[in-house]
Amino acid sequence: MDRVHLKAILAQVSRGEVPVDDAAERLSQLAYEDIAFAHIDHHRSLRKGFPEVVYGEGKTAEQIIGILKRMVEQESIVLVTRVAADKADMIQAAFPEGVYHADARMIVWGQPVNEEAPRKPIMIISAGTSDIPVAREAFLTAQAMGNRVQAAFDVGVAGIHRLLGYRDQMAAAGVLVVVAGMEGALPSVVAGMVDRPVIAVPTSVGYGSNLGGLTALFGMLNSCSSNVAVVNIDNGFGAGYMAAVINRP
Amino acid sequence: MDRVHLKAILAQVSRGEVPVDDAAERLSQLAYEDIAFAHIDHHRSLRKGFPEVVYGEGKTAEQIIGILKRMVEQESIVLVTRVAADKADMIQAAFPEGVYHADARMIVWGQPVNEEAPRKPIMIISAGTSDIPVAREAFLTAQAMGNRVQAAFDVGVAGIHRLLGYRDQMAAAGVLVVVAGMEGALPSVVAGMVDRPVIAVPTSVGYGSNLGGLTALFGMLNSCSSNVAVVNIDNGFGAGYMAAVINRP
Amino acid sequence: MDRVHLKAILAQVSRGEVPVDDAAERLSQLAYEDIAFAHIDHHRSLRKGFPEVVYGEGKTAEQIIGILKRMVEQESIVLVTRVAADKADMIQAAFPEGVYHADARMIVWGQPVNEEAPRKPIMIISAGTSDIPVAREAFLTAQAMGNRVQAAFDVGVAGIHRLLGYRDQMAAAGVLVVVAGMEGALPSVVAGMVDRPVIAVPTSVGYGSNLGGLTALFGMLNSCSSNVAVVNIDNGFGAGYMAAVINRP
Amino acid sequence: MDRVHLKAILAQVSRGEVPVDDAAERLSQLAYEDIAFAHIDHHRSLRKGFPEVVYGEGKTAEQIIGILKRMVEQESIVLVTRVAADKADMIQAAFPEGVYHADARMIVWGQPVNEEAPRKPIMIISAGTSDIPVAREAFLTAQAMGNRVQAAFDVGVAGIHRLLGYRDQMAAAGVLVVVAGMEGALPSVVAGMVDRPVIAVPTSVGYGSNLGGLTALFGMLNSCSSNVAVVNIDNGFGAGYMAAVINRP
Amino acid sequence: MDRVHLKAILAQVSRGEVPVDDAAERLSQLAYEDIAFAHIDHHRSLRKGFPEVVYGEGKTAEQIIGILKRMVEQESIVLVTRVAADKADMIQAAFPEGVYHADARMIVWGQPVNEEAPRKPIMIISAGTSDIPVAREAFLTAQAMGNRVQAAFDVGVAGIHRLLGYRDQMAAAGVLVVVAGMEGALPSVVAGMVDRPVIAVPTSVGYGSNLGGLTALFGMLNSCSSNVAVVNIDNGFGAGYMAAVINRP
Amino acid sequence: MDRVHLKAILAQVSRGEVPVDDAAERLSQLAYEDIAFAHIDHHRSLRKGFPEVVYGEGKTAEQIIGILKRMVEQESIVLVTRVAADKADMIQAAFPEGVYHADARMIVWGQPVNEEAPRKPIMIISAGTSDIPVAREAFLTAQAMGNRVQAAFDVGVAGIHRLLGYRDQMAAAGVLVVVAGMEGALPSVVAGMVDRPVIAVPTSVGYGSNLGGLTALFGMLNSCSSNVAVVNIDNGFGAGYMAAVINRP
Amino acid sequence: MDRVHLKAILAQVSRGEVPVDDAAERLSQLAYEDIAFAHIDHHRSLRKGFPEVVYGEGKTAEQIIGILKRMVEQESIVLVTRVAADKADMIQAAFPEGVYHADARMIVWGQPVNEEAPRKPIMIISAGTSDIPVAREAFLTAQAMGNRVQAAFDVGVAGIHRLLGYRDQMAAAGVLVVVAGMEGALPSVVAGMVDRPVIAVPTSVGYGSNLGGLTALFGMLNSCSSNVAVVNIDNGFGAGYMAAVINRP
Amino acid sequence: MDRVHLKAILAQVSRGEVPVDDAAERLSQLAYEDIAFAHIDHHRSLRKGFPEVVYGEGKTAEQIIGILKRMVEQESIVLVTRVAADKADMIQAAFPEGVYHADARMIVWGQPVNEEAPRKPIMIISAGTSDIPVAREAFLTAQAMGNRVQAAFDVGVAGIHRLLGYRDQMAAAGVLVVVAGMEGALPSVVAGMVDRPVIAVPTSVGYGSNLGGLTALFGMLNSCSSNVAVVNIDNGFGAGYMAAVINRP
Repeated sequence: MDRVHLKAILAQVSRGEVPVDDAAERLSQLAYEDIAFAHIDHHRSLRKGFPEVVYGEGKTAEQIIGILKRMVEQESIVLVTRVAADKADMIQAAFPEGVYHADARMIVWGQPVNEEAPRKPIMIISAGTSDIPVAREAFLTAQAMGNRVQAAFDVGVAGIHRLLGYRDQMAAAGVLVVVAGMEGALPSVVAGMVDRPVIAVPTSVGYGSNLGGLTALFGMLNSCSSNVAVVNIDNGFGAGYMAAVINRP
Repeated sequence: MDRVHLKAILAQVSRGEVPVDDAAERLSQLAYEDIAFAHIDHHRSLRKGFPEVVYGEGKTAEQIIGILKRMVEQESIVLVTRVAADKADMIQAAFPEGVYHADARMIVWGQPVNEEAPRKPIMIISAGTSDIPVAREAFLTAQAMGNRVQAAFDVGVAGIHRLLGYRDQMAAAGVLVVVAGMEGALPSVVAGMVDRPVIAVPTSVGYGSNLGGLTALFGMLNSCSSNVAVVNIDNGFGAGYMAAVINRP
Repeated sequence: MDRVHLKAILAQVSRGEVPVDDAAERLSQLAYEDIAFAHIDHHRSLRKGFPEVVYGEGKTAEQIIGILKRMVEQESIVLVTRVAADKADMIQAAFPEGVYHADARMIVWGQPVNEEAPRKPIMIISAGTSDIPVAREAFLTAQAMGNRVQAAFDVGVAGIHRLLGYRDQMAAAGVLVVVAGMEGALPSVVAGMVDRPVIAVPTSVGYGSNLGGLTALFGMLNSCSSNVAVVNIDNGFGAGYMAAVINRP
Repeated sequence: MDRVHLKAILAQVSRGEVPVDDAAERLSQLAYEDIAFAHIDHHRSLRKGFPEVVYGEGKTAEQIIGILKRMVEQESIVLVTRVAADKADMIQAAFPEGVYHADARMIVWGQPVNEEAPRKPIMIISAGTSDIPVAREAFLTAQAMGNRVQAAFDVGVAGIHRLLGYRDQMAAAGVLVVVAGMEGALPSVVAGMVDRPVIAVPTSVGYGSNLGGLTALFGMLNSCSSNVAVVNIDNGFGAGYMAAVINRP
Repeated sequence: MDRVHLKAILAQVSRGEVPVDDAAERLSQLAYEDIAFAHIDHHRSLRKGFPEVVYGEGKTAEQIIGILKRMVEQESIVLVTRVAADKADMIQAAFPEGVYHADARMIVWGQPVNEEAPRKPIMIISAGTSDIPVAREAFLTAQAMGNRVQAAFDVGVAGIHRLLGYRDQMAAAGVLVVVAGMEGALPSVVAGMVDRPVIAVPTSVGYGSNLGGLTALFGMLNSCSSNVAVVNIDNGFGAGYMAAVINRP
Repeated sequence: MDRVHLKAILAQVSRGEVPVDDAAERLSQLAYEDIAFAHIDHHRSLRKGFPEVVYGEGKTAEQIIGILKRMVEQESIVLVTRVAADKADMIQAAFPEGVYHADARMIVWGQPVNEEAPRKPIMIISAGTSDIPVAREAFLTAQAMGNRVQAAFDVGVAGIHRLLGYRDQMAAAGVLVVVAGMEGALPSVVAGMVDRPVIAVPTSVGYGSNLGGLTALFGMLNSCSSNVAVVNIDNGFGAGYMAAVINRP
Repeated sequence: MDRVHLKAILAQVSRGEVPVDDAAERLSQLAYEDIAFAHIDHHRSLRKGFPEVVYGEGKTAEQIIGILKRMVEQESIVLVTRVAADKADMIQAAFPEGVYHADARMIVWGQPVNEEAPRKPIMIISAGTSDIPVAREAFLTAQAMGNRVQAAFDVGVAGIHRLLGYRDQMAAAGVLVVVAGMEGALPSVVAGMVDRPVIAVPTSVGYGSNLGGLTALFGMLNSCSSNVAVVNIDNGFGAGYMAAVINRP
Repeated sequence: MDRVHLKAILAQVSRGEVPVDDAAERLSQLAYEDIAFAHIDHHRSLRKGFPEVVYGEGKTAEQIIGILKRMVEQESIVLVTRVAADKADMIQAAFPEGVYHADARMIVWGQPVNEEAPRKPIMIISAGTSDIPVAREAFLTAQAMGNRVQAAFDVGVAGIHRLLGYRDQMAAAGVLVVVAGMEGALPSVVAGMVDRPVIAVPTSVGYGSNLGGLTALFGMLNSCSSNVAVVNIDNGFGAGYMAAVINRP
């Protein structure tokens, strides 16, 4: 439940439009709602400024639908991540208003958070074409949280002049998210060129000694640039979320 | 062969209802029975208070059926773990009385052990919805071994107020089983709130640097709470068993 | 060379106090200075808002002194990290004005950066007493970069009421740095309570399956809270630096 | 602060022997006490039945003495683990009444907890002579928590008849702690012989592919016996503590 | 080419039945035969007493058939390991005389080596039912190399009385092959009971921290019994081969 | 864009056949071309002597076709690696002139680079039949870059006389590429016999403790011969490329 | 207690020279002797043909002396492995008759086992000079168990002609022990040349990605020769022991 | 023995200055010389163009002196790597003519190989000051093998303008050796700028998740530039050697 919903209920109570008992019943679910297979944290919007995001992997379509049904009553925007295409079809049958972004395997329902103060844009950079799904997950998440987002894909260090073509855009960003697999060198190079925070996202792209993304992860953690922090392998959502939190005015 | 079966045979002998030779033949299989692809440990009920549990993975439906046929003659309850749905169908065709619990991938045949002394309940807690299959395996195992079992699912540390809502139930439990993937922080937090033993079960839920559950496993082993011990990744059965052994009066 | 130095030189040129040739010579070293065993990046202050920080490990006292001699001519503040006590003695003999902080193994020379706009404080939290050296490194770095810094040490999850005592202070912070070894659960719990960015620092504190800090590192990367990003094991400096970059107005 | 101390203060207040203000001051420290480098959790005795145990590694002698000074005022027994011999000398100079057990690297101050109900003994078994320090740490901890403790050292599986000589003693124990390095096979064998809970402690004893104890750890987690749970490598203290918690009547 | 074939050719030459040129041509292929995708080592029978064994994984059915065609002209027995059932069907269509053993995924063509001196039997022991495929591979290999082979399956350490039932058979064996997954404790226990060499085979049976067999492998390498050596995970063929080499009179 | 294309455009401009504006437009894409999901590095041919090679894994057939369409306008040869058979079918429908080599999973379009100076041949050696796909990838790459290439497959160290049969060919090679899985011993042995550079390619062939090729990789890095350097696991393309770069006159 | 001692006691009893009670007392210690910090397995000589070998690492000089005092009363030969030079001095002060071999860090007391049947020699081969300590441990152990032992040190694969110089000696050996660090390729090559069993010993010699010997270990386990089995890293003792057990007539 | 020595002996024989028997004796040691703890490979100079290099770690000063004594009789240059300062003192007492380079821990005796054809220079680049010892080892090795060598130290990617200052020098080099610890990104960037072979050397410089150099190693193996091959961690010698072999005309 976000602040808008909360204030609306309280206003109705103050105007006598809603009986106290009904409002109390409604607000008692604020802490969390137990629906057997999940405890939905309706309090999160108030506490953290954005509602709980549903992690789709490992949940059945039925469970996701069950959770969504409860959340859309209380929130203005809901995200579901890591939804395979066939599962998305089943969910969209129940929620045609939810938009499925196949390139990011994400369902977005509702409107982006609307914050008052103007912010700098967030920039999403990916090293290779294969890293795009993770980069798109970051893109959509940051956008849903009320940011202007810009992107440059496939600008890895093997041809560094491609990256240099985006120098001005990088300098203007408030936060940068850099997505890279293989050796994961790109965040170090980007962070050396800007004075803003860089969130590095290792991807599992590559083979052999890329170790499912651990090589990129460790490379990023050992970055010789200091304005870098790292999130989990393939965690585009977390990077977009963290960037949006940093970019809050 | 459990104590009830054993005493029944000996009583029949003492009353002359069963010839000594027949009884001897029957009891000679007590140690173990060799059925070519398995040595069934019929002695285990007597030695350990609960019959051998059949580990279903890596066994064919035929092998499981063969083992079950021998065991149901000598035991009051038999569990088969890690049974995929299609394999369960084949097995249930031969044993319709065995109940298949799809959410825990387990077959339960017979009646829970009935112990005289009243016990405190065992509480099963899971961090996320995706951890439920493992948690349910623990639930059914502890129940089969004669315990009252309670559960709270999806109460991870990202919204700790959800966990605090179960404080009284946790305080009343004799043993707690805490199931968590990802960073595996929940057992530490739970153990810090109670003075009873906590069995921690890491799950393979997560991705990237969760390393198939090793991250949660190592996190739990390094718990800064001391009333915690750990079982193998995804080993809901082992946790439920260990909890029941601890909870014996 | 920071902006203050740069403007001073240009002002002197414009007033005719410094010949053009002398100024050109001086500015030509702006890019970097080659002193055989190091290429000092004098341009970094301008590019990134803070001068290059000297990583003391693996350098001899002589090398560190040589680098310092060049840097203090061009910068207002210089940090040297990871300096063992005996090496610090040798360096301080040459630079008595550099202050050695034994608890953080750091040398600080000069005055903190002075930025105009008021900022929220940065809060440094450590899980245990043994994590304090890393936490102090973060503290001093963030302070040197012009922040008010607050600290709460030894408030790990085994007794979570200790952490709750700092709830107001945490809510008021602009960025939080959370330092923890062993299972590394603290950042998840802290991040679940605030809506600001959390920089998590795993430490090598612990033994056995803590794997020299990898367990805490992986735990933090798998945090179920999304406003968390991670730096390298024991990298207090990097965490303090990243927090300061985020906290810039 | 344990229940005995707490009741004593309240009794004095009820008899008017202690002014309300003094008692309030005293009890206000109950939650925790902040001594700059540590937050001592005085509440733990009440919450968990045994006071906080001081982990000596990574703390200076001065820090340990500082913590001890505060704790002995409120507790009946205090343990300090992982204290090297030279550090112990410095601590004992300040606390001659604390007994240092060199074989377990532990300081014990005060009297074992005295619980009313009679318990079964706890049995500590070690596979080899080199595992004895860890086994002794478990021994002293379980003893401090009010248990009768028995031990059999150097009875590994290479000569299994040595173990069989302790069959009766094992059968009589309420909980067993089994300490083993190298391949870590002993807990499986012991657990196969008893129906009580077994806490397995891997040790770092061995070389080469023992991987600093990880081999024994993983072996124990994969035990084919189900009444086994595991604690961290070399964590004798944790095993003794968990065994005592399980063995509480 | 084995000694029998070689002597036959030379005898024909000495009797003038085969022209020298023809024999030379035939023998010139002795070193190896290049068939584009393979260099068949026809010399191996002479050098090592048993022909090259074809490793089926990663080879197409066509490649295996091509190799077999060449080998059966020169050898008395040929083994192909790791042949999946569908690939075996295709191969048997071309070589109906080759026998496919589905339980060991092996094709055996020809007659076992016939050595003169009588040998002791080789004994194959497996810990669990799921280990049987690996154990059967060892069984068939040792048999093909001219040994009497005996087997006891599913006699793991969780019920050690099952193993004790085979004490006499173990004592009579010339070499023992012990196959185990999970914690891999069985070889240590077996080796402690006999004075003959034990070849230990770790299997990938298990889950979670069994690490695909590495846990069993490391456990066996750290065995506290000294008459144990280890082969690769799931390498039943190698164990059977090594046992047969040791058992040669 | 390679030198031939570049010179042709400039010649047309100098002869007035192409207006300056058209040429400028054309050359402005020289640095790179942004096609939304990729930044094609047309400058690479000039900078590195060979055009960008398309890594097929993780790209859709549509993306590969889109990239190819742009590249064939500017280059004389284009390679696409790691193309599965079904994806190749879709691509070849659009580009029938591209040749698909199924054994190397590679598409080759155009003519090999034609360099003037005569070079020594490059020799590709593989340890086993299963290593051939990787070896063929190296073969085709080196060939495309203008080299004579020779091959010897399945000549591993278990029958070292097979390798010795190629001694003269090895001695005549300018660079050697040695491909091996399992223990990866072959490059050490080959490098000990020649005085030219050896590029070692570990493959993921094997099972159990081959660790997906890491065992071969580490073995090669620890080679006791010094004229060896290593590329990533299964990276036949990289090895062929590096060999060709070394072999340039 | 070996057979010689046992028969002597029984003979004395049969001749009435020793009272039955005294003999019974003496023989009752046969199973094992409990000396507080160790259970000495006096039965091992009878069961396994060679007495328990004392693993020196992790034991104090006092403990080793205590164990030795008991063993020399019952055995003809005793070995202590992994004894550092300073510890050896303390032990030899108490047992001047024990010979300390500094190059193998071993103490040998008594006479080699004397077996009747003539055996083939055992050959110990090391790849490098740095592997000699491990090779010498194998040498002395095999010798103590009654074998003729031969050695060739520093004959690694980088100059394979050095190894070929020992071809005849290798062919004549009954068992070969091959010791190698770095890439561990030597056992594969040796095993490809002989038809007898090869025991491979990886050593921790090397640096970087040798991973403390794991690289050599994994390489040996993946050997493409089948007459190889492996013991733990640096385990020269185990290899010598296993070779002697295999070489028993 | 290099070609110069060999020809000299043969010339003396042809002129009758040296009796045939003496020359035969001398040449018979050509293959290798057995000095108990080492088999010196005198044939290597002829076979590989440079004599065996002595790996100093794990050898005693006495062993190194013994090997040197034999080698200087037959070679024009001898290198000893990884010699600690105190060991170097002992060796130089016996060989004052050997020069010890403390910064590379190397002893160089004799004159660089003198090859006729002119070569391009080799360039050694290091990312940080702490990588210099490894870079210097590469420098001296390449120099000893007859190359002009150039160096640029401390030019890592955090300030990429420092590297760009060496663009011309890099373009002129025949081979480049790039030494880097931490994330190991420098070789990718360098290789993207040149068309010559790059030998990448990971170093163990860094901490935490640098994993003793494995992070840099894996990063380099996953380089997105294709003209890169990698040697072992800290293996400056191997990189210099490989570069020299590649650079041979």
